[in-house]
Amino acid sequence: MSAALETALAYHRAWTGGDLDRAMTYVADDIVCDAPAGRIEGVAAYRAFLGPFAGMLRSATLLAAFGDDETALVMYDTETTLVPSAPGAECVTVRAGRIVHSRFLFDRVPFDAARRRLGETSRP
Amino acid sequence: MSAALETALAYHRAWTGGDLDRAMTYVADDIVCDAPAGRIEGVAAYRAFLGPFAGMLRSATLLAAFGDDETALVMYDTETTLVPSAPGAECVTVRAGRIVHSRFLFDRVPFDAARRRLGETSRP
Repeated sequence: MSAALETALAYHRAWTGGDLDRAMTYVADDIVCDAPAGRIEGVAAYRAFLGPFAGMLRSATLLAAFGDDETALVMYDTETTLVPSAPGAECVTVRAGRIVHSRFLFDRVPFDAARRRLGETSRP
Repeated sequence: MSAALETALAYHRAWTGGDLDRAMTYVADDIVCDAPAGRIEGVAAYRAFLGPFAGMLRSATLLAAFGDDETALVMYDTETTLVPSAPGAECVTVRAGRIVHSRFLFDRVPFDAARRRLGETSRP
């Protein structure tokens, strides 16, 4: 298995398995992540981005995962407390066993819609 | 290069190069595509989904592309008339040189926002 893919899968198994601390050991301190809502810089900001998503995760299914020495690309489906099926894809650049860049892709529409519904129903 | 990746890249080059007819020659008649707005079945419906997106494309940049015998996974960035940077990812299953299943992923939020600004109501 390619070096980048090994790191990407170890990171993936950790965060989808509920071990965010372990997942973060595969993320470089100066990670740059281009996510749907914009650029995230640094491991603290990345954790603040991934943590809430990991926290609402019920299950994740890996759909495909490939890589070479430096790049890995994974796509997976997730079931979360907000959205029953929400696929995600991550294209990561790995150096020395850590993710230094990530292009993180998912559709925000069902999450935004679920939050609006929750906001509506929680109103007095 | 893997057989599935060859097909996926030929399809990708065709539609991002403005040749939708050629792109459709790599798509099975009975394609099933799970896209952000729901399931698309059959090549006519798939063309009706991809055509408008291809039609507003200004440029596309392949970010990563991998595959094995049956599956290919690609991620790319696009510049469209509606949205300056809109990445997409496609995980395709290929049989006999044609895409029979696709998981097609992008964030609908910037497209919906752009359409609201334009005052349009149609969706891809």
